[in-house]
Amino acid sequence: MALNKTLRPGLIQVRVLNMEESLNFYVNVLGLNEVGRTSDGRVMLKGYDEFDHHSVVLREADEAGFEYVAFKVDSPETLVNFKTATEAFGYPVDEVPANSDQPGFGKRYGFKLCTGHRIELYAEVELADQRPMVLNPDPWVEMPRGMRAQRFDHVLLYGPNIAEAERYFTEVLGMYAPEICNTPDGKRFATWLTSGNKAHDVALVEYDKPGKMHHFAFLLQDWNEIGNAADVMAKNGVKRDVGPTRHAITRGQTIYMWEPSGNRIETYCGGYTAYPDNPVRVWDVDEIGKGLFYYEGELIPSFLQIVT
Amino acid sequence: MALNKTLRPGLIQVRVLNMEESLNFYVNVLGLNEVGRTSDGRVMLKGYDEFDHHSVVLREADEAGFEYVAFKVDSPETLVNFKTATEAFGYPVDEVPANSDQPGFGKRYGFKLCTGHRIELYAEVELADQRPMVLNPDPWVEMPRGMRAQRFDHVLLYGPNIAEAERYFTEVLGMYAPEICNTPDGKRFATWLTSGNKAHDVALVEYDKPGKMHHFAFLLQDWNEIGNAADVMAKNGVKRDVGPTRHAITRGQTIYMWEPSGNRIETYCGGYTAYPDNPVRVWDVDEIGKGLFYYEGELIPSFLQIVT
Amino acid sequence: MALNKTLRPGLIQVRVLNMEESLNFYVNVLGLNEVGRTSDGRVMLKGYDEFDHHSVVLREADEAGFEYVAFKVDSPETLVNFKTATEAFGYPVDEVPANSDQPGFGKRYGFKLCTGHRIELYAEVELADQRPMVLNPDPWVEMPRGMRAQRFDHVLLYGPNIAEAERYFTEVLGMYAPEICNTPDGKRFATWLTSGNKAHDVALVEYDKPGKMHHFAFLLQDWNEIGNAADVMAKNGVKRDVGPTRHAITRGQTIYMWEPSGNRIETYCGGYTAYPDNPVRVWDVDEIGKGLFYYEGELIPSFLQIVT
Amino acid sequence: MALNKTLRPGLIQVRVLNMEESLNFYVNVLGLNEVGRTSDGRVMLKGYDEFDHHSVVLREADEAGFEYVAFKVDSPETLVNFKTATEAFGYPVDEVPANSDQPGFGKRYGFKLCTGHRIELYAEVELADQRPMVLNPDPWVEMPRGMRAQRFDHVLLYGPNIAEAERYFTEVLGMYAPEICNTPDGKRFATWLTSGNKAHDVALVEYDKPGKMHHFAFLLQDWNEIGNAADVMAKNGVKRDVGPTRHAITRGQTIYMWEPSGNRIETYCGGYTAYPDNPVRVWDVDEIGKGLFYYEGELIPSFLQIVT
Repeated sequence: MALNKTLRPGLIQVRVLNMEESLNFYVNVLGLNEVGRTSDGRVMLKGYDEFDHHSVVLREADEAGFEYVAFKVDSPETLVNFKTATEAFGYPVDEVPANSDQPGFGKRYGFKLCTGHRIELYAEVELADQRPMVLNPDPWVEMPRGMRAQRFDHVLLYGPNIAEAERYFTEVLGMYAPEICNTPDGKRFATWLTSGNKAHDVALVEYDKPGKMHHFAFLLQDWNEIGNAADVMAKNGVKRDVGPTRHAITRGQTIYMWEPSGNRIETYCGGYTAYPDNPVRVWDVDEIGKGLFYYEGELIPSFLQIVT
Repeated sequence: MALNKTLRPGLIQVRVLNMEESLNFYVNVLGLNEVGRTSDGRVMLKGYDEFDHHSVVLREADEAGFEYVAFKVDSPETLVNFKTATEAFGYPVDEVPANSDQPGFGKRYGFKLCTGHRIELYAEVELADQRPMVLNPDPWVEMPRGMRAQRFDHVLLYGPNIAEAERYFTEVLGMYAPEICNTPDGKRFATWLTSGNKAHDVALVEYDKPGKMHHFAFLLQDWNEIGNAADVMAKNGVKRDVGPTRHAITRGQTIYMWEPSGNRIETYCGGYTAYPDNPVRVWDVDEIGKGLFYYEGELIPSFLQIVT
Repeated sequence: MALNKTLRPGLIQVRVLNMEESLNFYVNVLGLNEVGRTSDGRVMLKGYDEFDHHSVVLREADEAGFEYVAFKVDSPETLVNFKTATEAFGYPVDEVPANSDQPGFGKRYGFKLCTGHRIELYAEVELADQRPMVLNPDPWVEMPRGMRAQRFDHVLLYGPNIAEAERYFTEVLGMYAPEICNTPDGKRFATWLTSGNKAHDVALVEYDKPGKMHHFAFLLQDWNEIGNAADVMAKNGVKRDVGPTRHAITRGQTIYMWEPSGNRIETYCGGYTAYPDNPVRVWDVDEIGKGLFYYEGELIPSFLQIVT
Repeated sequence: MALNKTLRPGLIQVRVLNMEESLNFYVNVLGLNEVGRTSDGRVMLKGYDEFDHHSVVLREADEAGFEYVAFKVDSPETLVNFKTATEAFGYPVDEVPANSDQPGFGKRYGFKLCTGHRIELYAEVELADQRPMVLNPDPWVEMPRGMRAQRFDHVLLYGPNIAEAERYFTEVLGMYAPEICNTPDGKRFATWLTSGNKAHDVALVEYDKPGKMHHFAFLLQDWNEIGNAADVMAKNGVKRDVGPTRHAITRGQTIYMWEPSGNRIETYCGGYTAYPDNPVRVWDVDEIGKGLFYYEGELIPSFLQIVT
């Protein structure tokens, strides 16, 4: 049965400058598992608590940055429905065949959002070989490593016309915005969107340059794992951006850091249980410092300026 | 638009033996807020992090125990659809008018599940006066109290024929079971069901007597709050059942204790992010000791025997 | 028997600008208990986990800052021995009679350290009325409040000639330095000194102006209490200086904040178990950024410049 | 200068039934580092946060249990003083030459306490090769493993006439008892003794059989590490005795488990900062259930009965 439901952001592909250096970070420091390599040399990774084939793909390139994020939907019928609705919304859609550039993945539909980002949708993916136990399971198969990242959690994108993008995610993909931020003249400055009970799956900030990524984020268990991540960060010479701190927005606890290529990574935990019937939390843009960095109470300059 | 989606267990009514003693526990120890009293003397309570009018109702009676749990659905249309589908499933449905015995609540539909429990559905409820901030919000309005329970989280019901009940929750209410437990001959012994990304909203255990409650549970933030709850429990002379420990099932961290009337209360946190497309975790009934109490590795005798 | 042992820094007196505003911070936010007021209007405070009469005294004045810190020694004989040894070290000593300006305190000996700070020594003090239980005790009598500060922990003083001051604390008071920081030409830039197994009871940084205080610190239980303190700080509009973060020096976890008068307060936890026979940890002054702020990996400018 | 000060319990030797199985537990599960083997096949171990050559020695034997615990004192002069005082107390003392059966250790003096346990004293030991950093140090050299035990912390001994043993530790070794437990007729039933600011270095329980060990304990960082230890315990099939729970006595947080040979191991954290001038906490023996297991509020039967 097609519930026309988006499940989660299930795949992100980003560019890195040096694969070896990057893998040391993503595997040994952040704690992802390497799933394998594609024929063109990209590296597939996943968190220890994810079932699907892989969730993060690194591509070596001359410039760091975001390539695309793909959302898993609940069924092949929904995938077709969403394709049709995306086209009706006004975005031309292309098709990526199953098991082509993303091993294990079924057919994907892709399009360019008004913000300049490529977004993809898919309904089917093989299970990973290394995945959580399901028969009388232990919490983990092997003791998690480094920062002990559990899964790819969300991405924050910067680009123009996020009001339209928010409309796309809510009207077409059935997501909702637990929190929004408006300028004094009532325009959307930022929005946090989710397809379930997590406080956010994707967030958007209004920005004049298209297609930029602020950060992508990995789920940790709790504030203590934030502390562990901070220790691991410092011990390994990973450059910190902000934190450990709390967001008032989503209420999550967090550290932002720079992976070796300059992409901003967030390790994130907490956040309230979001429901679509709860009132929307609304931020005035001049309170966004408190909203982003509850402890600091003000914006960290790098935070709104550096994107990849 | 009717998504035909269940949001959450939003209301539970239980019987207590002595209201004053109970309120001391629920308000001062567990940390719920008293919302007010009904004309017939029941007391309405809620967690500090809940928006809706109230989520827990205590009724003074000669015997402790469960009266009903009500699930909030995403729209009035869904409510009607679910009523129709419930009847089609074979359960006669009655209607409770809006703002009758549950102040602030819209119309509810109720029925008796095969397990002997009364279940209700509703789509509308007023917001509580004391609710989380929404304009440039702080994480809490007033510092949480006692065990700092955030919200009513789930209920575990004991009764006959849970296989049928599981079918009801999945086929009619659109929930799914991230974990199940089977007997050696393949019969369902227990099932954990959710309508979203929480590991469970309701759980069922096969039991010969109908209409029994094993426990109802409140969400805490994390393992440290479990530690705090344990300190508060001991300091206030609340009788412990089990914990602090971890469930392998749902992976949550937990304490079970007895409120003054003998109803079992769980304070719960953690648990994985559940998705309907992930494989179902399956427990053999002879491994359920590990499943329930991962640290103890075996069943605590009181746990399967005492229900209210 | 005189063990000639210093027990701990047991009393600190500081100046605040506005008593009412200060008490709101120290009592409601930091979580100290008000013990009472002296006849000249100073306010006596203590942590819920301290036995002695009081440990912090606030005096209203036109300028914030440090007045003196007093160390408790193990016996009246030791007090006399330390008085004699202090004079022999070259510091003239004055005597403050018992139960004079510090109610409940026995006789104190005071002197001016080369760094310009007044230091006092005492051996006797009455127990506080509100003190931890001793007969079949619970961990706390009343649930701790606000940031849940347990006790006055240490003070960091800035002034000239700390090499001599370090000699005083070690040779006269029997303390030792688990960590030191030297300039490239081998001069002492900073030193952390303890009389027991805490990583530090007092610390000193070389500074051209005499008699300055960098901060005084209160003990929290662990990293989660640091998180709670940060939430309470933000919720109450307390201005943060640095943190939550970890010191590599002492290994403690910390937040620095400004109380309403501009004195810097630290909430501190963790730190290794210090022993006098363990090797001294040595910091190069150009690594002190990492040493002070392990996560940031660099000095926060305010940190070395603002003192009271 | 001889301060006549005991520093800590620095060495314990215990018997295990099967060395290979034991090492898997102590190294891979508990997280100690193997230092090396003696010529007679004993294995030397230490926590990652200990500086001295080793702190735990396992000897393969037909029966598990305690062999001896050795206390490090602050100087060779103190060692001689303590030897003399021990003999004066009435215990014949033998001498173990430096670098004989305990590689790296200086001369040790040993004797049999009235409780039937061998106790040793030493002043000198070489530093371990694998030890904490001291030049611009990180918190750890390699990320801790398994339960992440930091150091050998204390031992609890069972035997007759602990009142005399307490007198020995206080009068000869200069320790003090922050907590004691008495029978209704005022006899000492249990005592917790420390040489510094830890809540205990050694504890004693009155027992008719001599020379028994209840458990020996390792320091963890905090309650979260207790949670991690519990996960690691369960994942590795280590048999739990009690916990996670809190002691009211010492206020520490704890798990007790059985290592493969049946010796009881505690992983411990927290506990208040002890001072010799603070009032002694006194337990009535019929409250010892609460004292030992604050959450359970009663004795676990195995706890007073099983010793090795």
